Amino acid sequence: MSTAMMGSDVAKAMKEHLIQEVIELKEKGIEPCLTIIRVGNREDDLAYERGAKKRMELVGIKCQVLELPENIHQAEFEEAFQKVNEDPKVHGILLFRPLPGNLDEGPVKAMIHPFKDVDCMSDINVARIFSGDEKGFAPCTAEAVMEMLDYYGIDPKGKRVTIVGRSMVVGKPLSMLLLKKHATITICHTRTEDLAGTCRNAEILVAAAGKAKLITKEMVGDGAVVVDVGIHLDESGNLCGDVDFDAVKERASYISPVPKGVGSVTTSVLANHVVRAARYLTTSC
Amino acid sequence: MSTAMMGSDVAKAMKEHLIQEVIELKEKGIEPCLTIIRVGNREDDLAYERGAKKRMELVGIKCQVLELPENIHQAEFEEAFQKVNEDPKVHGILLFRPLPGNLDEGPVKAMIHPFKDVDCMSDINVARIFSGDEKGFAPCTAEAVMEMLDYYGIDPKGKRVTIVGRSMVVGKPLSMLLLKKHATITICHTRTEDLAGTCRNAEILVAAAGKAKLITKEMVGDGAVVVDVGIHLDESGNLCGDVDFDAVKERASYISPVPKGVGSVTTSVLANHVVRAARYLTTSC
Repeated sequence: MSTAMMGSDVAKAMKEHLIQEVIELKEKGIEPCLTIIRVGNREDDLAYERGAKKRMELVGIKCQVLELPENIHQAEFEEAFQKVNEDPKVHGILLFRPLPGNLDEGPVKAMIHPFKDVDCMSDINVARIFSGDEKGFAPCTAEAVMEMLDYYGIDPKGKRVTIVGRSMVVGKPLSMLLLKKHATITICHTRTEDLAGTCRNAEILVAAAGKAKLITKEMVGDGAVVVDVGIHLDESGNLCGDVDFDAVKERASYISPVPKGVGSVTTSVLANHVVRAARYLTTSC
Repeated sequence: MSTAMMGSDVAKAMKEHLIQEVIELKEKGIEPCLTIIRVGNREDDLAYERGAKKRMELVGIKCQVLELPENIHQAEFEEAFQKVNEDPKVHGILLFRPLPGNLDEGPVKAMIHPFKDVDCMSDINVARIFSGDEKGFAPCTAEAVMEMLDYYGIDPKGKRVTIVGRSMVVGKPLSMLLLKKHATITICHTRTEDLAGTCRNAEILVAAAGKAKLITKEMVGDGAVVVDVGIHLDESGNLCGDVDFDAVKERASYISPVPKGVGSVTTSVLANHVVRAARYLTTSC
């Protein structure tokens, strides 16, 4: 039987540490602050926003939301964004994407201060993650996987780690974070010829393919660590991940559930990035 | 027995194509031009410079060299760089690195026009390669490997490709180029626990570890394609690669020699980038 990797436990441990860091910043007269920029009212943006606000409040980070109308013009959008970007009291900016179809994210990606870019929109942060520069902010979900492994004492160094999925929000940046920790990484995807065999060979398997229950028991090696980044509704309308949890848990040593797994850690990573951003922006780096 | 992948054959095929592209540009009144910026007189820079100049001449690209003294001050260096960067007649810039210790490459990396950045110095190009954006210029050596595979009709799609080495000039960008071609990629390095087994499992093996004759016959699967990016002097003072060529050639289906392998293709990739840069810079992209 496997150990379930509970996101709430990871988040709780991170919380204690974050509270301490926020206290230290406030003692120096710095109030860490996140601004969420939301265009329109998409339900999944609103859900994440509620979670993020709650998490920031829990650790003492100020969180404000700039709500912009869905039909805003590009010029006004850029102006509103730049105002936040230039505000010295704001340390982190989270812009919900994708933007409505009438807006182009290119100009704000180029504009955002790299230290305020707490969810890896800008080329500078992408390049930092690719090159292993510690000043970079990885996408929060990718880094949440690293926090999860770290909390459960799983060191990827030298290990065979297989990542299923090659997106810019999880697969690719996560592969770079793992490589920096000296894992031997393999990236699989829809065109991989022997997906089952490649997954089975992994000591740590990360499912980030975006396909419900893609990873079956036969695709998991005995005692492997399985981290599930997917989130879907199954045929009965219940939340599920990329992994067939009930079957795979019989074979894995550790396995993260969905819900209550990786998704419960992302806002803690976001809080951590805001704290780091506040530190970078108020010292001489 | 294996087929030797000869860099000169690849370069020759690229030459025919490049000559045609340069003629088309010249018919539109555009003379593609590369400026090489060299600080000091390092022998390996000079050797590459000779090869690059010869290659540009062969295909009809103008090539000029800006030679700067080794003891140049940062401000003068940046000024000289910016002048080339702003010159509308220059389409590609190749700066030899590493720079002498007294100079910081950061400002010119941030300054270089992304379309003139034909050897992937800037964050924008790094981010483009990472995200799979076709407008990006990969480091010439990484792309030379792709040209080699392409010339010999080896399609990496769906294949198990192992890359030994995780540098920013070969291993990492090459992994992204291969991923874009739908290979299943594995990145190994010094901390990989079972290097031999991981290499043996590959259908295509790329050695870019920077260690002479690291890859022995036992580390290569029967019929694998082996591409060698290393270049070293062996104990007898002869050039050799990361692969023990004489032994491995018995087992591989294709194998690139050193010298006369990948290294003979890099200046052709550089020429190709200059042609693309000239096209990008003179049209409305």
